[in-house]
Amino acid sequence: MPEFFNVLAPDRAKELLLGHTGHRTKVDRITTFRALGRVTSSSVFAPHDLPSFRRSSMDGYAVKALDTFGASNSLPAILTVVGEVAMGSTAKVVLAAGEASLIHTGGMIPPDADAVLQIEHTQTVESKDASQLPFEIEVYRPVAVGQNILMVGEDVQEGSEVLPDGHYLRAQDIGGLLALGITEIQVYTTPTIAIIATGDEIIEPTGDLDYGQIRDINSYTIASLVSQNGGIPEICGIVNDDFDSLLEAASTALHGHDMLVITAGSSVSVRDMTVQVIDRLGDPGVLLHGVATRPGKPTVLGVVEGKPILGLPGNPVSAMVQFLVLGVPAIFRLQGAKRTPTKGSVRARVSRNVPSASGREDYVPTRLIETSEGLVAEPVFGKSNLIYTLVNAAGLLKVPINRNGFEAGEWVEVLLF
Amino acid sequence: MPEFFNVLAPDRAKELLLGHTGHRTKVDRITTFRALGRVTSSSVFAPHDLPSFRRSSMDGYAVKALDTFGASNSLPAILTVVGEVAMGSTAKVVLAAGEASLIHTGGMIPPDADAVLQIEHTQTVESKDASQLPFEIEVYRPVAVGQNILMVGEDVQEGSEVLPDGHYLRAQDIGGLLALGITEIQVYTTPTIAIIATGDEIIEPTGDLDYGQIRDINSYTIASLVSQNGGIPEICGIVNDDFDSLLEAASTALHGHDMLVITAGSSVSVRDMTVQVIDRLGDPGVLLHGVATRPGKPTVLGVVEGKPILGLPGNPVSAMVQFLVLGVPAIFRLQGAKRTPTKGSVRARVSRNVPSASGREDYVPTRLIETSEGLVAEPVFGKSNLIYTLVNAAGLLKVPINRNGFEAGEWVEVLLF
Repeated sequence: MPEFFNVLAPDRAKELLLGHTGHRTKVDRITTFRALGRVTSSSVFAPHDLPSFRRSSMDGYAVKALDTFGASNSLPAILTVVGEVAMGSTAKVVLAAGEASLIHTGGMIPPDADAVLQIEHTQTVESKDASQLPFEIEVYRPVAVGQNILMVGEDVQEGSEVLPDGHYLRAQDIGGLLALGITEIQVYTTPTIAIIATGDEIIEPTGDLDYGQIRDINSYTIASLVSQNGGIPEICGIVNDDFDSLLEAASTALHGHDMLVITAGSSVSVRDMTVQVIDRLGDPGVLLHGVATRPGKPTVLGVVEGKPILGLPGNPVSAMVQFLVLGVPAIFRLQGAKRTPTKGSVRARVSRNVPSASGREDYVPTRLIETSEGLVAEPVFGKSNLIYTLVNAAGLLKVPINRNGFEAGEWVEVLLF
Repeated sequence: MPEFFNVLAPDRAKELLLGHTGHRTKVDRITTFRALGRVTSSSVFAPHDLPSFRRSSMDGYAVKALDTFGASNSLPAILTVVGEVAMGSTAKVVLAAGEASLIHTGGMIPPDADAVLQIEHTQTVESKDASQLPFEIEVYRPVAVGQNILMVGEDVQEGSEVLPDGHYLRAQDIGGLLALGITEIQVYTTPTIAIIATGDEIIEPTGDLDYGQIRDINSYTIASLVSQNGGIPEICGIVNDDFDSLLEAASTALHGHDMLVITAGSSVSVRDMTVQVIDRLGDPGVLLHGVATRPGKPTVLGVVEGKPILGLPGNPVSAMVQFLVLGVPAIFRLQGAKRTPTKGSVRARVSRNVPSASGREDYVPTRLIETSEGLVAEPVFGKSNLIYTLVNAAGLLKVPINRNGFEAGEWVEVLLF
C-alpha cells in the first residue's frame, strides 16, 4: 500500500481549489428584507441622494450662520424665533435676517437657514414660554455655515455604487438598501452541497450499535456548517466501502448539486478509493492529495466542471477542521461572494506548551477561560477521532505553518467556531 | 427641556439589564439535527461509553505488545499475521503468542490484542503477497500496551454529563449528540422580539419620500440581528410621536412577545416620551437613561416582568451598535443561554488617529485592508445618522472606556459584524 501525498500548505490548497471553482450564474430576485446572508449578483446604485433633503443632526434652532457671528457669553447675539419645523414635513418657515426656527433632530432645514444652533448654547430671553411664538433667544456661540446639518447626499450620492456585485449581505446592508427604497434585489441562487459518508463501520445515528460500528456524525456536522455558511446541505446517506457503489453515489450526487463532500474512512485503502472515484467523475478530477495541516492532512481536493469536491478524513475532528479551512470558502465562492467573510478570533495566552512541527499548520481545540489576567487558551488535547475535544472547545488554536508550536504563556490566536 | 441621564458604562449597563431579564421556561423537544443554534434546557448525559469498543487509530497490525519487546532494525521481531479485522463487525480473530491481525483505522481491536503496530514500522517477509493469510512480518520497533488504540470511553464515559443546561448548540455539539445516538433533545423555546419604530418623519421602506421624510430602516436592521442571534423578530410597524399611540402599541407588543425594542426619534422630547411609556408598562420599568458609549449614549433600558425593553436612538448607526452591545446578550439570556457566544474580532493597526474621551466606550465603523505589513483598520468617519458608514465597514473599532483614543499605527481590536 504505497502512500502518495502531494501535500500543499492550506493557503495554497485553498487557492488551488477556489481557482478551479466556478460560481452560480443563475440569480433570484428577492425581497431585500429576506436577503440577509445572500450575495448580490450585480452592482446596486443609489436611485436618489441620501439624505434627500438637508436634515438637522441636533435639537436646536435653524439659523443663518451670519447672524451668530461674534456671539459670546459677554456679548450674545439676539435672534427672534418665528416658527418650528414639524417632523416629517417640508420646512415652510421663512427666515428674514435675525430670525430662527425651532428644529428637532432629523428635521428638514428651512430653505433660508444654513446652520443649526445647539439648544445648549442659547437661552430664551426673560424666561418667556418657548411654546408661544415668536420669542427671543440669546446666542452665546457662533455657528459655522453647515454646522449640525446633514447635507443632501452626505450619506450616499444619487447614481453612486452602494454595493458591488458579489457582496455578502449583512444587517446594515439590508438597512442601507431600504433607506434608498430598494425593496427588491438580485442575488445569486443558493448552492446545494451533497454530503456522502462512506465506511462499512458507519451506521445511521438512529441505529443501535453493534460492536465494531459507529454512528455517522460527519454528515451532520458538515451539514450544520453548510447551513451556517449559506449553502443548502443534502445528506445523501452512507455508502459501503466499494468502488462501484461509491462511484455511482458520487456521480448522482454531483450531477444534482453544486458541490460534493465525501467523508471517507481513514484507512489508506478507502482514501485511495476516494481518489480514484473523484478522478473518474470528470475533469480535472483530483487536484491534491494532502494538505499540510493537523488534523486532516489526508484531505483530497478535486473539481469536476467547476464543482468542488472534498474527500475528507473520517475522523470527526479532521473532517470538521478541514471543512472550515477549505469547504466554507468554497461555499462562498459558489455563492458568488468576492471573498469569504472574515472568521472572528480572539487573542489569549496559552496555558501550556503546544508542540507542533514547522511546515504544518496545526489547529488545536481550545477552551477559553476568563481570568483576572485576561483570556487564557487551554488546549483540549485528544486524538482527532474524539468529537468531544471539539464539543469541549470554544475555538481552534492556530499554530502557523512557520512555527514550532507555542510555549506556555505566549499570546495565541483562537479561531472561534 | 431638562436632559436627565443616569449613565452607566456599557458592561455595567449590560449586567443591569441581564440581571433583570428572565429566561424562557418552556421547552421544545426537537430532532437533534434541527437543534443548531438552539439552547439546551437540561443537562445531557452519555447513555453509553464512546467509543463503545476499543478501536484502532492507525492502519496496521493488532498485536500483543509483549511480542514486540526489544524489536529493532538490527533485531526485528517476527510475527505471524493470522487474520484481518473486517470494518464494522466484531473482531473475531483469536491471537496466540507471536500472532497478529491486520487492522484498519477505526477497526475493532481483537480481544487478545493490546496494541496496534503502525504498518510503516513493519515489513512482510520475502515480499510475500500480504493478501494471503497467514504471512510473516518483521517488526522494527516495539509498541507499548494501549498504543494506537482508542480505549472504551476515551471520548466520553457512560453517565457523564456531555452538555450542561443552557448550552448554545454548535455543529460539533450536534455531532457529539448523534455519536451517542441522542437523536432528540430538549431546548428552550425561541423568544420573539417585537420591534416598534417611532417618528412622525418615518415611512415604510416601500413608500415614496416627501421632503422631510425618511424610510424606516432600524426595524429591518434590528430584525436581521435578531434572526442572526436566535430570536424571532416581529416588525410591528411605525407609530406616531404621540404618547397614547406609543403606549398602546408598546403595551400590545410587550404582551405578545418576550422582548420589546423601540427605535425612537432622536430628539429629547421623543426620548422623554419613550422613557415615560416604558415606565407606564409595568415594574420595574426604566432601569437606565444612558449608556457611556458613542454612538448611542441616549439609550433607554427597561424591564417589565422579566422582559427586557430597549429604547434605542433613531440614528441607524447608534441603534445598531447599541443593539449589538445590549440587545444581542439579552436575546441569548432569553433563550436560556448561560452566556453570550463570544463575538469574534480581529487585530489590526489603525491607519490614523482616532480621538475619543476617557469614560466612554467608542465604536468606530472600520474598513479592514490586507497589506503586506498585515491587516490595517481604516476608520470610516461620519455622523451616526449615516447608515453607509456601516455598509462600508467590515467591523467596529472598539476604543475601551479607559482610553483617550488611539494614535495611528497602534494595534486595535475590530469587532466583526
